[in-house]
Amino acid sequence: MKMGNVIVGQSGGPTAVINSSLVGIFQAARELGATKIYGMLHGVEGLLSDKYIDLSEHILTELDEELLKRTPSSYLGSCRYKLPDVKDDEKAYINIFNLLKKLEIEHFLYIGGNDSMDTIQKLSDYAKTKNINISFMGVPKTIDNDLVMTDHTPGFGSSAKYIGTVFKEIIRDGYVYGNKNVTIVEIMGRNAGWLTASASLSRMSDCPGPDMIFVPEIPFDISSFLTKVEDTQKRKSSLVIAVSEGLKDKDGRYICELSEHVVFTDSFGHKSLTGTADFLSDMVARKLGCKTRSIELSTLQRCASHIVSRTDINEAILAGGHAVKASYEGHSAEMIIFERISNDPYHIITKTCDIKLIANKEKKLPLEWLTDDRMFVKKEFFTYCRPLIQSELNPIMVGGLPLHLYNEELMF
Amino acid sequence: MKMGNVIVGQSGGPTAVINSSLVGIFQAARELGATKIYGMLHGVEGLLSDKYIDLSEHILTELDEELLKRTPSSYLGSCRYKLPDVKDDEKAYINIFNLLKKLEIEHFLYIGGNDSMDTIQKLSDYAKTKNINISFMGVPKTIDNDLVMTDHTPGFGSSAKYIGTVFKEIIRDGYVYGNKNVTIVEIMGRNAGWLTASASLSRMSDCPGPDMIFVPEIPFDISSFLTKVEDTQKRKSSLVIAVSEGLKDKDGRYICELSEHVVFTDSFGHKSLTGTADFLSDMVARKLGCKTRSIELSTLQRCASHIVSRTDINEAILAGGHAVKASYEGHSAEMIIFERISNDPYHIITKTCDIKLIANKEKKLPLEWLTDDRMFVKKEFFTYCRPLIQSELNPIMVGGLPLHLYNEELMF
Repeated sequence: MKMGNVIVGQSGGPTAVINSSLVGIFQAARELGATKIYGMLHGVEGLLSDKYIDLSEHILTELDEELLKRTPSSYLGSCRYKLPDVKDDEKAYINIFNLLKKLEIEHFLYIGGNDSMDTIQKLSDYAKTKNINISFMGVPKTIDNDLVMTDHTPGFGSSAKYIGTVFKEIIRDGYVYGNKNVTIVEIMGRNAGWLTASASLSRMSDCPGPDMIFVPEIPFDISSFLTKVEDTQKRKSSLVIAVSEGLKDKDGRYICELSEHVVFTDSFGHKSLTGTADFLSDMVARKLGCKTRSIELSTLQRCASHIVSRTDINEAILAGGHAVKASYEGHSAEMIIFERISNDPYHIITKTCDIKLIANKEKKLPLEWLTDDRMFVKKEFFTYCRPLIQSELNPIMVGGLPLHLYNEELMF
Repeated sequence: MKMGNVIVGQSGGPTAVINSSLVGIFQAARELGATKIYGMLHGVEGLLSDKYIDLSEHILTELDEELLKRTPSSYLGSCRYKLPDVKDDEKAYINIFNLLKKLEIEHFLYIGGNDSMDTIQKLSDYAKTKNINISFMGVPKTIDNDLVMTDHTPGFGSSAKYIGTVFKEIIRDGYVYGNKNVTIVEIMGRNAGWLTASASLSRMSDCPGPDMIFVPEIPFDISSFLTKVEDTQKRKSSLVIAVSEGLKDKDGRYICELSEHVVFTDSFGHKSLTGTADFLSDMVARKLGCKTRSIELSTLQRCASHIVSRTDINEAILAGGHAVKASYEGHSAEMIIFERISNDPYHIITKTCDIKLIANKEKKLPLEWLTDDRMFVKKEFFTYCRPLIQSELNPIMVGGLPLHLYNEELMF
C-alpha cells in the first residue's frame, strides 16, 4: 500500500545535520510511495499562517540531496513556538488541523529537541480526542544532546567534532608567544554540559586539551576557579578553559548575568545567554593580571557544516528514515531513539519511544563522569563521545567555498 | 657547493600556513645540502636567551612534513619583540650575533609580517656594518595581507577562505526563525580591510552574502550605519554585517574603545582590539529594538587549519623555498614577493624585493574597490581574492580530529 501524504517540519535551534534528517525523511517517504511530501516553513508556527512547500519541487536531483546533507541551518526554517494548552486556546489546533485536512496529511514528522517533542505530544493528543487519523512522529535533533531515552541525539556528534577541532587550534594558538595567558571559550548548552565536555576530545597525543571544563550541572564557584587557574599557571604558561554558557553560581544566578550584556528571553522562557566567557576573562585579567582572551563559539558550533561527523550525518538520515517507516506502520506519538549496542566496534540500533517519556525532559551529563574536582571529565565520557565524531563528509566545494542547497522561500 | 648552516624563525601573529613556509624552507635547505637547519624558538626574542632547536631532530619523516603543513599556529613559537635601535642598545645585537657565530649560521630566514621585516632590516644592517657574512631573508606571512610590494601574503588566502565559509554558515543561521535580526561579525585586520572585505566572498548563487562591510580604511559613522541597517531591514529580515576590529570614528577613536572591554598594548604599540561587534550589536539592539548577535571570529580565523586554501599552502611553501634559494645565491636584506601574471588562469611568480621597501609599511585596501557608499566591495575585489581561496588540503584525521605535528619544546 502506498504511503499517504507526509508533512515534515524543523523546530528549535538548527544543527549541522538537521537537513540530513530531512533527506532521510524525504527519501524514505518517496521510497514508500508517498504522493505528496510537504515541508512546513518555520515549523508549526509557519503552518498557522499556511506556510509550506512541496518538497519534491525543491529537491530535484541526487545532487540536491547530497547538497542538502551538507547544508547547515534548517532548510525549512525553524521556530521556537510553543503550542498553547488546548483547554486555554483551541484556535491554533483548529487552524493547524484544517490545513492538515486540506493537504490530506496522514503523516506528520517533526525534527526537533525536547520543546519540539512537546508539540508532537500536544498535536497527537488533540488528534486522538478528535478521532483524527494522522500519525505524529518525532525525529530527535539537538546539538545539546539533552534528550532523554536516547543514547545521544543527531547534531551533537558534529558539534562535538567541531568543538574538539577548534579547541586543538585554539590551544595551539595560545602557546605561540610563550607568555602567560588564559583563554576562556564559551560553549552552548544551557542546562546540560555535553557540548562543553566535548572540548575534552582535543586531548590527544599531539595536544594537552583544555585545562579545565566547567559544566552547568555543577554550581560555579568563582573563587575555586581563580585558585585553580593560579595553581595551573605554576606549571604551564598557556591555559585554555571551556565554560558552558549556562554556568550558574550556587544561588542560581547565571554568571553571564553578572555582566552587562543584553539578555533576551524566548517564548519557552529560555534566556539568550552570552557573556560568561567575557565576564570570567575580564575577572582573570583583573585578579591575576595576565593576558586573557574570551572566545564565544556562538552559532559557529551549530552550523559548521564544513566539518561534520559522518557518523552523525548517517545517523540523522537513519533517524529520519526510521520515523517515516514507523509512521507508515501505524506508530504515532513516538520519537526515534538510538540504543547503543556496543562501543568497539561502535554499533547502534534505532527504536521508537513514547513521546510522553521524552517531551519537556532534559538529560544531564552524568555527574559520575566528572573528575573529583568537577573540573574535567573522566574516561567514561571519552568512551561515550569518541565514536560519535568519527569520519567526515566533505563539503562540495565550488569556487573555493562549500556549496549549499538554498531555499528561495526563506532566503534572499 | 653545499649550503651553509641555516636558522629560521617565525614572528608575529600565526596563520594557518606559516608552518607551510617552514616546510618549504626545511625542504629547500635540505635539498641544497645545508648541514644544519636550526629553528629559533619564539623568534629573535628566543634567540636572546639561546632558545633554538635542530629541526632535523623534529621533522623526521615525510608524514611529519605533511602534518606540519596542516598544523596551525607557529610550530616554532613566535614573538612580538621589536629590536631596539642599535645606537640605543647594542646588547641584543651582540647576543644574537654571538649565538649565530657559535652555530656557524650563514643563512637567517624570518617568516613574518611588516614588523618582522623590521627585524630582518636591522639585523642585516648590523651585519653589514660589522662585515659579518650572514644573509638575511624575509618570508612574507600575515593573514592581514597588508605587506607592500607583494600581490598578497601567505596566510591571507586561508583566512579569507575560512571567513567566506563561516559567513555562508552564519548567514544561513540568521534566516532560520524568520524574525528580524542583525548579526555583526568582527574580523581581524587592525588598519587594513582585506580580511573584512573577504566576507563578501560568501555572496554566491546560494547565499546573499553580508549586507554591509565596514573596513578600517573608512572612518566609521555610527549614524549612517544605523540608517543603513534600518533601510535594509525594510526589505529583508535577517542582516549579517562584517566589521573590522579596527574601526575608528572620524576623530580617530577606536569604536571598541567606546565599550568597556580590557585593552592590552603590545611592544610595537599595537592595541589588542576587541569588542567592536559587541558594542555595535548592543547599540542596534537598543536603538532599533531587534534581536542582535555579535560574533568575534577571534583566533579561529588565523588558526583554522581544518579548512585552508591549497593555493595558499602551495604559495607559502614556494615562498619559503625561494627565500632559501635566494639566500644560497647570495641575496640578503630582501623579502620574497608575489607578482600576479594573470587572473584566469591564475598565475603568480615569486621574486625578491629590497626589505627597506617593505619593513614597517602597510598596504591598505584600495578605496576604489569599495562601492560608492563605502559599505561593500566592488567586482575588482572578487577578481583579486577568489583565486587565493581555491582548492583544499584536507587535514589528516585521526580518531575523528585533525592531527598536528607538535613541538614538545613549546607545548604540554
